Amino acid sequence: MTRLLHIGASPRGAASESLQIAEQFIAGYRERHPDHEVETWDLWDGSLPAFGPAAAGAKMTVFGGGTPQGEQAAAWRDAHAAFVRFDAADRLLFSVPMWNAGIPYILKQLIDVISQPGTIFGVDPQTGYSHLLANRGKKAAVVYTSAVWGPPLGPEFGRDFQSTYFDDWLRWTGIADITEIRYHPTLTGDADEERRATQTAARQAAQNSASGGQCQRCGSVDPDYTSPVIEQPSDEELAERLAEPCTPSSDISTFIRLDD
Amino acid sequence: MTRLLHIGASPRGAASESLQIAEQFIAGYRERHPDHEVETWDLWDGSLPAFGPAAAGAKMTVFGGGTPQGEQAAAWRDAHAAFVRFDAADRLLFSVPMWNAGIPYILKQLIDVISQPGTIFGVDPQTGYSHLLANRGKKAAVVYTSAVWGPPLGPEFGRDFQSTYFDDWLRWTGIADITEIRYHPTLTGDADEERRATQTAARQAAQNSASGGQCQRCGSVDPDYTSPVIEQPSDEELAERLAEPCTPSSDISTFIRLDD
Repeated sequence: MTRLLHIGASPRGAASESLQIAEQFIAGYRERHPDHEVETWDLWDGSLPAFGPAAAGAKMTVFGGGTPQGEQAAAWRDAHAAFVRFDAADRLLFSVPMWNAGIPYILKQLIDVISQPGTIFGVDPQTGYSHLLANRGKKAAVVYTSAVWGPPLGPEFGRDFQSTYFDDWLRWTGIADITEIRYHPTLTGDADEERRATQTAARQAAQNSASGGQCQRCGSVDPDYTSPVIEQPSDEELAERLAEPCTPSSDISTFIRLDD
Repeated sequence: MTRLLHIGASPRGAASESLQIAEQFIAGYRERHPDHEVETWDLWDGSLPAFGPAAAGAKMTVFGGGTPQGEQAAAWRDAHAAFVRFDAADRLLFSVPMWNAGIPYILKQLIDVISQPGTIFGVDPQTGYSHLLANRGKKAAVVYTSAVWGPPLGPEFGRDFQSTYFDDWLRWTGIADITEIRYHPTLTGDADEERRATQTAARQAAQNSASGGQCQRCGSVDPDYTSPVIEQPSDEELAERLAEPCTPSSDISTFIRLDD
């Protein structure tokens, strides 16, 4: 069964803007995908393990080709269990308030716990990182909120290391299908109006992944859109096509036929 | 008494590169400033409070002009006590390993605990942030280490949100006198040689703040440097100078006299 995991990084419960927006996303998602499983992981519920001396030691043991023992082994198991919970999701929804220009420390703790060699990444001294969650059909939606900083403001209102860092991390894991939902009313903006617009956009964003003609980014719908008709070739046609010689080439015209 | 506070963000003890480099800095500092107080705050020692539901609620209460009560008041007091410990230092030394392209979550936790309105920053809807640790003579040295990423490498080896974020946070608090000490041997570099060089540089960097003719950045010494002789004018000379008319001007020659 397809599973959506909502990872909540705000401790403010019903008072949290990011959680309210995420709830709209979830409501839209349930409407569109009534048969999918939806789970929320509140990072503040005490279930996230630390990544302190024992776990950091275990990581270095693994980097060195060894197997963690004793305390290190227990910490490594806890970290791996957190990864398994994360990795069981096909769709991820993150609610991420800006804290001091970055992500809340509890979300960095999740990143530091689950980002391990062999599960999230590999590394080669010559070619660099490999991204082990790539090509597994995973999609992410991220709700970014802030109270002071906003995209049109200058650096006197702070800088954005919230979305730049988190997006970089997601892509580093191999998750490249990412929808952003943003709420940055700034101190002088119309917070109520922007809240309404963002919550509507969040509900739509949850529905557009399977809705043809609706923008993945902004939720807007093309009224003239009709689903493409994909003709399956008959067995005979397929055999005929496959019998033709294939010439690999960087010339894209090689791969395009008039009836495609 | 002048106080150096070393804030350690690595949990790896004697195995930590960043802590070893920081120890060299401290050794150099003690040599140069035997009368200064030196303290280390190991962020992994359990003394750092959380900043969860109660503390985040308190912050929002303060933003709204109110006074935290009950659980919120206790969490707010704990956060303030951490700030007081931080703020008691004239010189700060941070040892910061790179964790997943950023700073370790425990250092972000410190930032999220101590970065409060009225102590670290103020904010005005029209003009943005003010930086409350500015102009208080505070200086910081930061040891940045990484195992895989290094400045000459491409993005296939990751991106640097470690120093970019942390430097931005320091400057946001108002601390602008910052010395960087870096150890990025990369997976293909000569780690032993770079370790020796970095540890030497760290020891020198600790000594150069009060040494005339020695570079604040790299620790190199100008052998021809002699301290300037600053002549204090006599009371008579001073009275004579102040009696002259002063014409504010952007022409610097206005302010320069032959005997200056």
